[in-house]
Amino acid sequence: MFAVDHVSHKFDDIIQHKIDQKTKPKGALGQLELLAKQVAQVQLSRDPKAKKLHITQPGLLVFAADHGIAQYGVSIAPSEVTSQMVANFVNGGAAVNVFCRQMGFNLEVIDAGILAPLGLDGITEHRLGNGTAAMHLAPAMSLEQVKQGFEAAHEVVERHVLSGCNLIALGEMGIGNTSSAAAIMAALLELDVTSCVGRGTGIDDKTLALKTALLNEALKLHRPKLTSPVHILAYLGGFEIVQMTGAILAAAEQKILVLIDGFISTAAALVAVRLHPAARDYLVFAHESEEQGHKLMLSHLGAQPILSLGLRLGEGTGAALALPIVQAAVNFYNEMASFEDAGVENVV
Amino acid sequence: MFAVDHVSHKFDDIIQHKIDQKTKPKGALGQLELLAKQVAQVQLSRDPKAKKLHITQPGLLVFAADHGIAQYGVSIAPSEVTSQMVANFVNGGAAVNVFCRQMGFNLEVIDAGILAPLGLDGITEHRLGNGTAAMHLAPAMSLEQVKQGFEAAHEVVERHVLSGCNLIALGEMGIGNTSSAAAIMAALLELDVTSCVGRGTGIDDKTLALKTALLNEALKLHRPKLTSPVHILAYLGGFEIVQMTGAILAAAEQKILVLIDGFISTAAALVAVRLHPAARDYLVFAHESEEQGHKLMLSHLGAQPILSLGLRLGEGTGAALALPIVQAAVNFYNEMASFEDAGVENVV
Repeated sequence: MFAVDHVSHKFDDIIQHKIDQKTKPKGALGQLELLAKQVAQVQLSRDPKAKKLHITQPGLLVFAADHGIAQYGVSIAPSEVTSQMVANFVNGGAAVNVFCRQMGFNLEVIDAGILAPLGLDGITEHRLGNGTAAMHLAPAMSLEQVKQGFEAAHEVVERHVLSGCNLIALGEMGIGNTSSAAAIMAALLELDVTSCVGRGTGIDDKTLALKTALLNEALKLHRPKLTSPVHILAYLGGFEIVQMTGAILAAAEQKILVLIDGFISTAAALVAVRLHPAARDYLVFAHESEEQGHKLMLSHLGAQPILSLGLRLGEGTGAALALPIVQAAVNFYNEMASFEDAGVENVV
Repeated sequence: MFAVDHVSHKFDDIIQHKIDQKTKPKGALGQLELLAKQVAQVQLSRDPKAKKLHITQPGLLVFAADHGIAQYGVSIAPSEVTSQMVANFVNGGAAVNVFCRQMGFNLEVIDAGILAPLGLDGITEHRLGNGTAAMHLAPAMSLEQVKQGFEAAHEVVERHVLSGCNLIALGEMGIGNTSSAAAIMAALLELDVTSCVGRGTGIDDKTLALKTALLNEALKLHRPKLTSPVHILAYLGGFEIVQMTGAILAAAEQKILVLIDGFISTAAALVAVRLHPAARDYLVFAHESEEQGHKLMLSHLGAQPILSLGLRLGEGTGAALALPIVQAAVNFYNEMASFEDAGVENVV
């Protein structure tokens, strides 16, 4: 349902020349130079006549949902905390609120399927259900729900793009969702669960062993049905992960940048790139989280994250914090003088 | 000439409790939590009645100077590039200008002793000479020049503080200054030159061998005289490194935060901390540069840098880029809801 094209490489030489003529030794801005090149490729693909790079109306979408498996003791917190945190988002008191205000993000909170609707203003209700089924006992959701999730996310992204947004960042809230992300990762990359599973927000050894055992059960139960990325989402996914996957593909279809946060959104990115490899061109990875397995997924995606601050919170906090660095890449590309402009000897 | 006190630890428990009551699992904001704690310690030491943390009128000081050793082939660029880049700073075209505009820094460019004065508006002339002497042949400067440099830096920092600045970031420009920084590092940490020296902005193997040989000559020549950090500055230093050391100590004396950039400013930080160990309390390390030896100095200082973006440009670019992360630490500390405020279960 998404039409995703690779970025154009028509302007690559022009872009690289522009970067190399800035008043600095070649490569001296390190990762910022790679970022600037990627932003230029994306934005010139969208508008080949663009004179400058720019980030306008950046949107951060926080998708919240609950997970059946959370009832079986895989997390430090009960599912109720998902709803409590969603209320906190709406009231502006969470970390992601603080960082969105600072960085200039338009924050949208989407109820993708928490246990029960909160009925608060300021929440987009795109509920796919009252939490997923426990994936070690049944399919987490139906294929029809995956499709609905994609459509819902498409609508959200299109709305942001129509109002002038050209960068979408992703965040999530959902007690139990590191279990879902780890199961998806294990299934997609055909890895042992132990190399994908981690401590989430801080579980102990006993809980980690239980989490690993339940994920192994889930994978064993559904293995014959896991025949495509969409099936993997349906059997092992979470409603928020489905909608994040849809949001990534919708943004890639629109040829805008997508800022990926931590472990959960990287799992969604993995699914999206499996569905449409061209989607990778639009992805910027914001943060390497503390969650085991994240490094592995990032390396599989050929990603070099911008930040590594030891965050393990989700919500989109890493994505929000990385925006000034992306903006700095845009700004040096637009504003720095060239050797010729500045009368500086280009010795490299 | 500086009176530097340690930060107060009187409020440590209150600070930690405030951080731990925020609506997030304990420690989930990783390095931001350590930063918030440090900022709170510094700012409550300056003003025990402060109700909120805040960063006001941040100043970025770029100290520029030339180095006698640069005439002997240790760099890819001739000394003239120092002046050309200083003119670029004044005209607003360099990377540090772009990032200072974005991040809201007041940028001050200080001529600490480039080859010849440029006579341009917008440069603070605190010249200690027309570049240092080549340190493998003679002392880079006199003890009197070190003292003058400290006084000059003290004046600059005091002026910023009087106009409301409570965070000073440091940057530099000086062809040949990685040689000086590496020599200072080798002398202070009693390390072999080979573990301190690096490729600067990108020298080849042959130039690296020459650079190493000249630094070994310099250390051999002056070894008996390197009896204190001030002597090390005089014999091996650069005018910009001397003034950066002075700026760090002046800021620490004023109990304000100092944002350290890359390899050169870390060498200045090393000298400052040797002179006044309490100065360490005020230092925030912005960036781990690509320069070999930087990791070693950072580890010696017990520093955990905020960013690691592969920059090798200097100018204060890493420091400028790190400010939003420091600001984010301040903001979450000030603005995030507590578990009690938000009605979220504290399960950790």
